[in-house]
Amino acid sequence: MTNQIYKQVFSFFLSVLLLQSSTVSYVPKSFDLKKPCKHFVLYLHNIAYDGDNAANATAATIVKPLGLGDHSFGELIIINNPVTLDQNYLSKPVARAQGFYFYNMKTNYNAWVAWTLVFNSTKHKGTFTIMDANPFGLQPARDLSIVGGTGDFLMTRGIATFKTKLTQGSKYYCVEMNIKLYECY
Amino acid sequence: MTNQIYKQVFSFFLSVLLLQSSTVSYVPKSFDLKKPCKHFVLYLHNIAYDGDNAANATAATIVKPLGLGDHSFGELIIINNPVTLDQNYLSKPVARAQGFYFYNMKTNYNAWVAWTLVFNSTKHKGTFTIMDANPFGLQPARDLSIVGGTGDFLMTRGIATFKTKLTQGSKYYCVEMNIKLYECY
Amino acid sequence: MTNQIYKQVFSFFLSVLLLQSSTVSYVPKSFDLKKPCKHFVLYLHNIAYDGDNAANATAATIVKPLGLGDHSFGELIIINNPVTLDQNYLSKPVARAQGFYFYNMKTNYNAWVAWTLVFNSTKHKGTFTIMDANPFGLQPARDLSIVGGTGDFLMTRGIATFKTKLTQGSKYYCVEMNIKLYECY
Repeated sequence: MTNQIYKQVFSFFLSVLLLQSSTVSYVPKSFDLKKPCKHFVLYLHNIAYDGDNAANATAATIVKPLGLGDHSFGELIIINNPVTLDQNYLSKPVARAQGFYFYNMKTNYNAWVAWTLVFNSTKHKGTFTIMDANPFGLQPARDLSIVGGTGDFLMTRGIATFKTKLTQGSKYYCVEMNIKLYECY
Repeated sequence: MTNQIYKQVFSFFLSVLLLQSSTVSYVPKSFDLKKPCKHFVLYLHNIAYDGDNAANATAATIVKPLGLGDHSFGELIIINNPVTLDQNYLSKPVARAQGFYFYNMKTNYNAWVAWTLVFNSTKHKGTFTIMDANPFGLQPARDLSIVGGTGDFLMTRGIATFKTKLTQGSKYYCVEMNIKLYECY
Repeated sequence: MTNQIYKQVFSFFLSVLLLQSSTVSYVPKSFDLKKPCKHFVLYLHNIAYDGDNAANATAATIVKPLGLGDHSFGELIIINNPVTLDQNYLSKPVARAQGFYFYNMKTNYNAWVAWTLVFNSTKHKGTFTIMDANPFGLQPARDLSIVGGTGDFLMTRGIATFKTKLTQGSKYYCVEMNIKLYECY
């Protein structure tokens, strides 16, 4: 009798475990969007190079717009922007955003971005990369995907929600980046 | 006697479970390539800007080829292409493909692409990004990796198989994108 | 009595399994950095196009530096570089590195790279893509994230540690890429 119980329990859990391992990769998973494993808010400051502000500039256009539409289609910008914990661009940077973006819409302001946040302080060392469309002329809040990282952010994945906080012509803008990481190691 | 069985069963499954959790990240996993969690086919239509077709153009060269070889090495193109459910480019778009590609081979046509599919309809909202080499001059079918997404495609990963369906000189081409997602949330 | 044992054991493991499945996505995971599922070392060779070496060149500048600082800020390079198993650039290539990089720092040499390793031999077919900041003027060893792949490297993720092994002016450099993959299928 007891032997039979042993067999029953054994076979039940073995089947559950085998089922788990065989389906781990392609079965739809669900997770709680409200519970990222890391969550923080950062502010990026972009000071455009105008030919005269080399000391202050943090970003520069390397290919000018084509003239296809009136929204800078084809303009390509490389950045090395300071990232701070509040909206004040004079605050001490906690990271740099390194990467590029370009405009790609004829009828509105729309960018495609690939930005790596580089942390190199006593508190945080490592990187993670945000890459996605950024339709800043169309939506006040935009979700962009985070696809990988190193160091303190090893192999991370998640979502960055962008909101433009301030724009001063073509000279300066500030973007709030609400970072939610759902894979942490 | 029953107590002993309890202990045996307990320790067996505990060890299995601990083994699982401690190896979850670096042990080779296997999954069934034939069973993606989402699977659909899309068609991308690229109408190149030639200086005179601003109303219809959906893609534009922003850096011209270098003259290194005869296969457009160095040409950089930015796209905002309609994506449809069938091969007819007049069909109602279900998404836009936003991103860029460039040619990078001296001896054949070979591109490197980073394209984000942007869905913004009542049926689907969200994005996912395809990024990989696309050796369209060498292989009729090319697998490209899908590395992340947002909205309905939150944190997705998978494979896009590209096949060129039609090319009209340098003016137009249509690519079939067979999308197989293996991580869905 | 035996029935009671059955229930106890059942409920214990059921709760463990349910806990597992409900937390699989957002609870911090840990894994052993010393035990990648795949681990190998590759060497990339970059021969810059200078206008006269079309036969040998494997990489070419498509946008020249801006003159913002003295470290090539804004220079954009497209590559199709041979990748070998040892440091000798005459060794038989096992892969090509296809992609691009650009310089993005005013005060030192710092690049941002997106490189896809393309394997197409009898031994290995497939691709994986490395994308991250590469501060080669600041750090002898740099970790870059690997964000996706195809074929033999289907859906892979991991870390590539870059070390510059040799630089000959602006004509040639060799980078050691220590590849550690932590997700294998």
